[in-house]
Amino acid sequence: MSDNTVLIRNLSDHESSEVRLLGWIEKRRSSGKIGFLEVRDGSGTVQAVISRAKVDEATWQAVQDVTQESTVAVVGTVAADARAPSGFELHATSVTILSLTEDYPITPKDHGTAFLMEHRHLWLRSSRQRAILRVRSEVSHAIRDFYSERDFVLIDSPILTPAACEGTSTLFATDYFGEPAFLSQSGQLYLEPAAAAFGKVYCFGPTFRAEKSKTRRHLTEFWMVEPEVAFLEFPGLCDLAEEFITYLVARVLDRCAEPLKRLERDQSKLESVQGPFPRMRYREAITTLADHGKILEFGDDFGAEEETILANLHDRPLMITHYPAKAKAFYMQPDAEDEDLALALDVIAPEGYGEIVGGSQRVHDHELLLRRIKQHDLPEKAFQWYLDVRKYGSFPHSGFGMGLERFVAWMTGIPHLRESIPYPRMLHKIYP
Amino acid sequence: MSDNTVLIRNLSDHESSEVRLLGWIEKRRSSGKIGFLEVRDGSGTVQAVISRAKVDEATWQAVQDVTQESTVAVVGTVAADARAPSGFELHATSVTILSLTEDYPITPKDHGTAFLMEHRHLWLRSSRQRAILRVRSEVSHAIRDFYSERDFVLIDSPILTPAACEGTSTLFATDYFGEPAFLSQSGQLYLEPAAAAFGKVYCFGPTFRAEKSKTRRHLTEFWMVEPEVAFLEFPGLCDLAEEFITYLVARVLDRCAEPLKRLERDQSKLESVQGPFPRMRYREAITTLADHGKILEFGDDFGAEEETILANLHDRPLMITHYPAKAKAFYMQPDAEDEDLALALDVIAPEGYGEIVGGSQRVHDHELLLRRIKQHDLPEKAFQWYLDVRKYGSFPHSGFGMGLERFVAWMTGIPHLRESIPYPRMLHKIYP
Repeated sequence: MSDNTVLIRNLSDHESSEVRLLGWIEKRRSSGKIGFLEVRDGSGTVQAVISRAKVDEATWQAVQDVTQESTVAVVGTVAADARAPSGFELHATSVTILSLTEDYPITPKDHGTAFLMEHRHLWLRSSRQRAILRVRSEVSHAIRDFYSERDFVLIDSPILTPAACEGTSTLFATDYFGEPAFLSQSGQLYLEPAAAAFGKVYCFGPTFRAEKSKTRRHLTEFWMVEPEVAFLEFPGLCDLAEEFITYLVARVLDRCAEPLKRLERDQSKLESVQGPFPRMRYREAITTLADHGKILEFGDDFGAEEETILANLHDRPLMITHYPAKAKAFYMQPDAEDEDLALALDVIAPEGYGEIVGGSQRVHDHELLLRRIKQHDLPEKAFQWYLDVRKYGSFPHSGFGMGLERFVAWMTGIPHLRESIPYPRMLHKIYP
Repeated sequence: MSDNTVLIRNLSDHESSEVRLLGWIEKRRSSGKIGFLEVRDGSGTVQAVISRAKVDEATWQAVQDVTQESTVAVVGTVAADARAPSGFELHATSVTILSLTEDYPITPKDHGTAFLMEHRHLWLRSSRQRAILRVRSEVSHAIRDFYSERDFVLIDSPILTPAACEGTSTLFATDYFGEPAFLSQSGQLYLEPAAAAFGKVYCFGPTFRAEKSKTRRHLTEFWMVEPEVAFLEFPGLCDLAEEFITYLVARVLDRCAEPLKRLERDQSKLESVQGPFPRMRYREAITTLADHGKILEFGDDFGAEEETILANLHDRPLMITHYPAKAKAFYMQPDAEDEDLALALDVIAPEGYGEIVGGSQRVHDHELLLRRIKQHDLPEKAFQWYLDVRKYGSFPHSGFGMGLERFVAWMTGIPHLRESIPYPRMLHKIYP
């Protein structure tokens, strides 16, 4: 590599200097006298301008021959240009084709989603996909910064697990040296013992659901962040979720201006995501839904339609709490004032993006948890270690889970989760 | 929770004030007049001193009754104490047992490793395990900071994959809606197409090897970080690995002083990890080994013993390059000066910790890669998308992988990987 090779992102440091770029051609056009190449190098995109009168024949020929997604080396002088999106263009003196691309499958014309999904490895190069995945990368790092700044210890929970958190019907199974094992749906059970060691812990890794349904809101493999905090009770859990979401949204607004602009995201919708979030109990939600013509009985779960009705009443995330215990997981702490209710929290994103956070205070009484495990027909022996957390120095504690892809879909304003992850896994979809 | 509840880590902000702590008893001792409780809350450990003359009967009784790993609430005044590890102790006025622990399985006496591994969920509470996992948590975040600061985009590679990176003999398999799928051993193949979109990318997630061997250096589930950089050639790859390792070691020394002290880690061994690292070609390594009585033939792989001999010649990581192509993976770029050699890099940690980094420049010529896939009897169709990276705008690129657990074992000076991860997965070991 020549010494003056620079990244497009850093062009402003080299105004009026000669530099060399290595990248891919996004577009080319040329008249008899002047050529324009849009060059992408991953850090940014810049236009190279080639004047036939000022370059040798080989360079001019390269400008004529080069095709979309060919790899090139371009040498030229960096010039400020107020009209350019990056503020600069390159007055090129030499263009070399490093690898000529023929018949690139994704052309500027419209392609069907099935086709694009089959070519996901190439689709990633499009400006829209790059914008979405840059937001994802920033959100991922922001999630880790949030917990690190608050002295949470990262506890990577295992993927290979012997028992299921919430039943086995939607689990991927594998043979573990002769024993059955399952891919984890949640790290929560593994976080709770660690909370007794570190107080505040979190995990953030891939989780798996063998969902046989095809919806725009589900993936079979997705990333989930789960904090778990010792001695944190339910009101504190709701506060933590609110602080977390507002932190992430502010970070996206602060650091992802360019991708959000590319995605034509209405940023005012994100700017209104400020605390305090509206909080509503399940019973109140039922009443509100009835007012909007949706009659649900106590105990019914909310579907996407109900979530959207409730979410549309607010310009920021809605917290729904105190769900019927029977509709929720076995480990959720009952409300002391009404044992039929669970100290459970769901956070519904605005704009129809659905549930982004689900959490609860956990049962910390050993006898109650044992009873629940039996009631749910769960194998007591497999949960012995989980029961131990209540047997040896039990403590009230709470936590939640947030799916990364739903959050990213909301931030980027995309309708389907499949674009929120580099290589989506869905029903019958595992290639590439 | 009472308003004056604080974390032990923050006691210095409350000198001479009355505070409340919530935590677990690590140790208790008591005479007829004075009691001492070591309280852990996850953020730290502090000694509470209880003077019988100054507390009510209920508190004094609690001090007598309380046991190891019982949960307590302690109210008292924060007092500076130069002898205390934290610099403070608590002059307690009230002690309440929140949950009394009976027969805690892990006592201060020695336990066998098998017993501790069966009780991993409780073993996490020990000061040694906490120290190791705090280092792990810090290293994980440092890894992400390193790449984030250098504008790498995080590309989470999929766990569920249809094809194998390097053969299927050590893969965990699952049924993916009727199709066979495998748990990923590496994200590399998925990073390479993304490098054409973003230039610099990395992944960092769990990877899986169904190794049927039981060694202190292997886990079946472990976390690996893998950067991949477009237009980066082999010398730059070696520089990146060196910069990365020195960054991480400096960060551990800077931020993990307390855990390293607890682990009695010889920090001078880490302080000497400065660039430049010694670099040695495979042929030179063979000659050096022969000088030390180890006769290997060209093409032989290095085992743990050979690695240790070579590593012990240096006080910092050793980079071994230019391995025989036949001993290395199909996607490694041949050395232009000797086609029998691969532009491959292994980094061997000092002190016998073995290989921590393995990487290479990748083949970017379409025809050569196709030939290699055929030579290795790999299913060409499954690699079609990977070949596409060479078909459409090919580019030289390089990357490496680093296993988190080996790095953490080295930093913390522990002999076995099983303590470097919260819930280790090994041959026949998947509980808890």
